[in-house]
Amino acid sequence: MTAPRGRLYLVPNTLDFGTGESGADLDDRLPLGVLRTAARLGHWVAENAKTTRAFLKRVDARCPLAAPLQQIAIVELPRPPKGRTEVAPDDFARLLAPVLVGHDLGLLSEAGLAALADPGARLVAAAHAAGLRVVALPGASSIALAIAASGLNGQSFAFIGYLPIDAAARSARIRELEAASRRHGQTQVMIETPYRNPALLAALVGELQPATQLSVSVGLTLASESTRSDSVARWRAAPSALPADVPAVFSFLAR
Amino acid sequence: MTAPRGRLYLVPNTLDFGTGESGADLDDRLPLGVLRTAARLGHWVAENAKTTRAFLKRVDARCPLAAPLQQIAIVELPRPPKGRTEVAPDDFARLLAPVLVGHDLGLLSEAGLAALADPGARLVAAAHAAGLRVVALPGASSIALAIAASGLNGQSFAFIGYLPIDAAARSARIRELEAASRRHGQTQVMIETPYRNPALLAALVGELQPATQLSVSVGLTLASESTRSDSVARWRAAPSALPADVPAVFSFLAR
Repeated sequence: MTAPRGRLYLVPNTLDFGTGESGADLDDRLPLGVLRTAARLGHWVAENAKTTRAFLKRVDARCPLAAPLQQIAIVELPRPPKGRTEVAPDDFARLLAPVLVGHDLGLLSEAGLAALADPGARLVAAAHAAGLRVVALPGASSIALAIAASGLNGQSFAFIGYLPIDAAARSARIRELEAASRRHGQTQVMIETPYRNPALLAALVGELQPATQLSVSVGLTLASESTRSDSVARWRAAPSALPADVPAVFSFLAR
Repeated sequence: MTAPRGRLYLVPNTLDFGTGESGADLDDRLPLGVLRTAARLGHWVAENAKTTRAFLKRVDARCPLAAPLQQIAIVELPRPPKGRTEVAPDDFARLLAPVLVGHDLGLLSEAGLAALADPGARLVAAAHAAGLRVVALPGASSIALAIAASGLNGQSFAFIGYLPIDAAARSARIRELEAASRRHGQTQVMIETPYRNPALLAALVGELQPATQLSVSVGLTLASESTRSDSVARWRAAPSALPADVPAVFSFLAR
């Protein structure tokens, strides 16, 4: 007889990176059903155990945890060994051990959806390879919200991730993406480490054609959130300063 | 003196198309903060007024509406005139009239995020053109959840929308997307009208290379939800039947 197997739950996080703006209760940002599921899970995988404990404390304030926090197992996602970019697949398969003996396992992101623009995807792949059931709980992705808020083409879009840091390589990549956007009518979406937000904005405004529509969403779901969607010509005529400490999502559509 | 202007709120819907599975309370699926905002809005734009009223009744059961349902203004998004594919931009600008005189306006999707893979994007664009503030409230997108649940590359993906219906054109497009996926390491994501789900799955399984990883998510966030992510070789060896009445999201990554 084999033990019944558990499930891998992809648990969405808020988009505030746990900074917990004053008065921002967790249940303002996440569905109650998600908090209930999170409260009963005794096994977690996450990028960072400390921020996961902080998240679970916030959950506990709304839906009491099924077990004391000290008894909840939190394992961090493996990082590639020094000098390598890849983690061996076995390192992910090992994290699934609790599921094989019947426990449900939660995968938590630092912000937004786990495994989307986030290192958890390889754990999800390992779960599928092991024939396990994977359930993505409903939560917000800053990328999806930014596309919606941009007013750009939401029927065809590409998420590119990060652009090169080197200025010449980044300029070349922006021109290449603008050509692809024009050819396919496809919105191009990218993110950046917050302290490089101003540099990426300057590169986009400098490099893109005047008629291209450029949208920047900053601090989505926070009280300070804003989205500016404007032609590059107007971004040039009336520049905006971007904060260098808040996540932003950049998207553009060539005309 | 000019009147203070309202905001355009993009209000997420559940992913169940209002079918309201037994026991599935709205606050299991949407954050309480979203329900509170929805409950106070007196002006709405939506694809369908009837399903919007049904949504507001579900909201009311959890957060009492600020005004009686009959007093809430619900305007349907304009559809292109017969024989045309485009709606004139003025038809969207007109819908923003309440915002110009200080009312907040909600844009509601039939399912998931408004303006993402959804006709509301042009209203959002009109709001930006009028210099109005656009706020995307946190909610789930079936596309983002499906990518997360696929275990495929979540750092680079393209949402393609619908493929051609004609079999030869669809096959050619699948091969073209597979080549792009291989070239850029980019997950390709598409949707289909539910009754054509089985035909699209058959086309993908028939056309893609055996080593390409194909993921299909069906009925995301519903009790019946499932995601299968497997190589095309294994989809061929062990075929799955897809329901023809539940939304599905298809994604693949060439190896």
